[in-house]
Amino acid sequence: MPTAHLPTESAARRWPDEPLAKDLARLRETNPLTHCLTNLVVTGFTANVLLATGASPAMVIAAEEVADFAAVANGVLINVGTVTEPDARAMLIAARAARDAGTPWVLDPVAVGALRFRSNVAAQLLGFSPAVIRGNASEILALAGLSGGGKGADSTAGSDEAVDAARAVASQTGAVVAISGEVDYVVAGDEVIGVAGGDPLLTKVTGSGCALGALMAAFLGVADSPVDAAVTASAVFGAAGQRAAAEVRGPGSLAVALLDQLYLLDPAEWTG
Amino acid sequence: MPTAHLPTESAARRWPDEPLAKDLARLRETNPLTHCLTNLVVTGFTANVLLATGASPAMVIAAEEVADFAAVANGVLINVGTVTEPDARAMLIAARAARDAGTPWVLDPVAVGALRFRSNVAAQLLGFSPAVIRGNASEILALAGLSGGGKGADSTAGSDEAVDAARAVASQTGAVVAISGEVDYVVAGDEVIGVAGGDPLLTKVTGSGCALGALMAAFLGVADSPVDAAVTASAVFGAAGQRAAAEVRGPGSLAVALLDQLYLLDPAEWTG
Amino acid sequence: MPTAHLPTESAARRWPDEPLAKDLARLRETNPLTHCLTNLVVTGFTANVLLATGASPAMVIAAEEVADFAAVANGVLINVGTVTEPDARAMLIAARAARDAGTPWVLDPVAVGALRFRSNVAAQLLGFSPAVIRGNASEILALAGLSGGGKGADSTAGSDEAVDAARAVASQTGAVVAISGEVDYVVAGDEVIGVAGGDPLLTKVTGSGCALGALMAAFLGVADSPVDAAVTASAVFGAAGQRAAAEVRGPGSLAVALLDQLYLLDPAEWTG
Repeated sequence: MPTAHLPTESAARRWPDEPLAKDLARLRETNPLTHCLTNLVVTGFTANVLLATGASPAMVIAAEEVADFAAVANGVLINVGTVTEPDARAMLIAARAARDAGTPWVLDPVAVGALRFRSNVAAQLLGFSPAVIRGNASEILALAGLSGGGKGADSTAGSDEAVDAARAVASQTGAVVAISGEVDYVVAGDEVIGVAGGDPLLTKVTGSGCALGALMAAFLGVADSPVDAAVTASAVFGAAGQRAAAEVRGPGSLAVALLDQLYLLDPAEWTG
Repeated sequence: MPTAHLPTESAARRWPDEPLAKDLARLRETNPLTHCLTNLVVTGFTANVLLATGASPAMVIAAEEVADFAAVANGVLINVGTVTEPDARAMLIAARAARDAGTPWVLDPVAVGALRFRSNVAAQLLGFSPAVIRGNASEILALAGLSGGGKGADSTAGSDEAVDAARAVASQTGAVVAISGEVDYVVAGDEVIGVAGGDPLLTKVTGSGCALGALMAAFLGVADSPVDAAVTASAVFGAAGQRAAAEVRGPGSLAVALLDQLYLLDPAEWTG
Repeated sequence: MPTAHLPTESAARRWPDEPLAKDLARLRETNPLTHCLTNLVVTGFTANVLLATGASPAMVIAAEEVADFAAVANGVLINVGTVTEPDARAMLIAARAARDAGTPWVLDPVAVGALRFRSNVAAQLLGFSPAVIRGNASEILALAGLSGGGKGADSTAGSDEAVDAARAVASQTGAVVAISGEVDYVVAGDEVIGVAGGDPLLTKVTGSGCALGALMAAFLGVADSPVDAAVTASAVFGAAGQRAAAEVRGPGSLAVALLDQLYLLDPAEWTG
């Protein structure tokens, strides 16, 4: 649950449709190899979201294998949702290998701040230069504390605090920072891009935020920049989520319809 | 597969609708934080069942994190379905922390009796005062042996033996014991409450029993007593399962419809 | 992704319908206990595929439990998709116990060849006499290298090379080798059986290949021979997949419809 208010969408810049259409078309053509070290609640759903959209997922998690695989993948996701000690070791190896090989990667700091062990893991992972960090407002606020940005999860919440925290994290780490919520915000340097879409019912489908992080890793493999990847993934996921929610009665049907709508999305819709 | 016959539903007391309606309404309002250490076959489905019904699931499993989390959660589920040695260590830490913090917790002794390692783990877990134990007839019979109740899985099966075993387990442990089957029975001290509902097709959906255990942990966070939580969870799950089964042709559709029906359930249905 | 072309279906022998109908009927009647050590992306879906078809899945993975369980199961699946070091240890114990107890088992060498750690694990597993090996063309080519068949993943691809590699693996190991693709091929000694069915959209559902391997393990518990089990599983899965694909718009609906169609399959369809 976000603990801070976010700016209204109108306070953020809108994004042009062209890169979005181009990147979705590229994803469909090239099926970027997306290496996921994610939590065990959402592995299957994450792989299905990637496949439906057009990416090629690979859940390689053994410490013995992650370095080689992260080096050849087109994008890597590291999600600490159910991280244990052996997982953490493999994640740090993967993050280092990704950085050294120039493979862009996404950090999803699930529940960081609330739990010390994973907060330490996330703080170490930040040292390996993620291209994108995706979380909800609470997680980004917590991360601002970890990254030395001077803001912690307990700071008084102001209307624009999550974005301020994202700016601090972006400045400290060089990453693009995406804040998920009713409207998604992508913070890149001084720029804040708002992406509408989605539906409140998506909060009743486990792993929808985690799958969005994975989709950002997939788009890192085809986009011109991390900000393009984060915005396109959010727009694609938001559009499919909105359409799916419009046709269902509950969260079971929503998860199914979301995969169908991701598959049915046509890049041409954004080139009109 | 249950190895013992259960009493007919008519031999058990029926439960009033009032606490059921009240607890479902409370669950929807307060979204109790439900900490699950469960098996890796059912993590995603369990989280989706909890979300659809109105609880807030958290699958925190690292030994470094479970004590802190169990202490702040509203209810905890420990399910030994795919337990390994590191999992067992974390489960024992979580159970101890839950007991010490007064967080009520559910033990789901999957396949206990048939396999020695998990039987030992379950026997140790019993020492940390679960509020509810949920299993099928075989598992409750096996647990009766482990808990010193004098009945083992191999004892001659009589028509009321699973309930007798449940009584023995309840008496030894102080827990409410729920036996899942065609009719669910909740044994609390001398009382046996029968809860109808569900559908045989649910046995073709993996994790439906495990998800029911998780739902009991969620209701422990809002109900006035463990027996209320066990009965309400069974009634809610049974009602949604029955409606879902009535509208589908097979187990794939059933899992989807079950989530939708859990979401659509209205507490007012039980207050007529 | 297969890197080698496969022979056209017409170049392979067709299989009679009788054993297929008989084995599906037997599966429904006897619910063979199918012990799966599989990857954590597909555990839930695999269990649901087995349940929908009529088998009784059990995902027992602890090193302390796998030997006892593999000995009493009717068939075992070992899938190295997300294998870690502790998993590998348990898999080797399970494979040895299955061989020693005479329980037939399936090896699914996911991504073998591309990654050294799992290739070593697979090479060791081959020493415990799997009854069936199931993979895509690349994996079978890689396995031919590991098993000493003289062909590696990098050898020049000819139109019949995957089948040649399968023949080499079959000859070295004594196993039946199943190659999954647009048409499935089952190689048993000198015989090549082609099994049509399925749909390209199934490649957008994570774990469909892995679930097919599990289904082969289930049919090993009821079929007269490993070749019968591999062919029947492929035919059953292919028929259900084809029907499911014909009625859906995308991969989310496909996974649901596949489970329904597996459940709805009638052995009598093959006895006309």
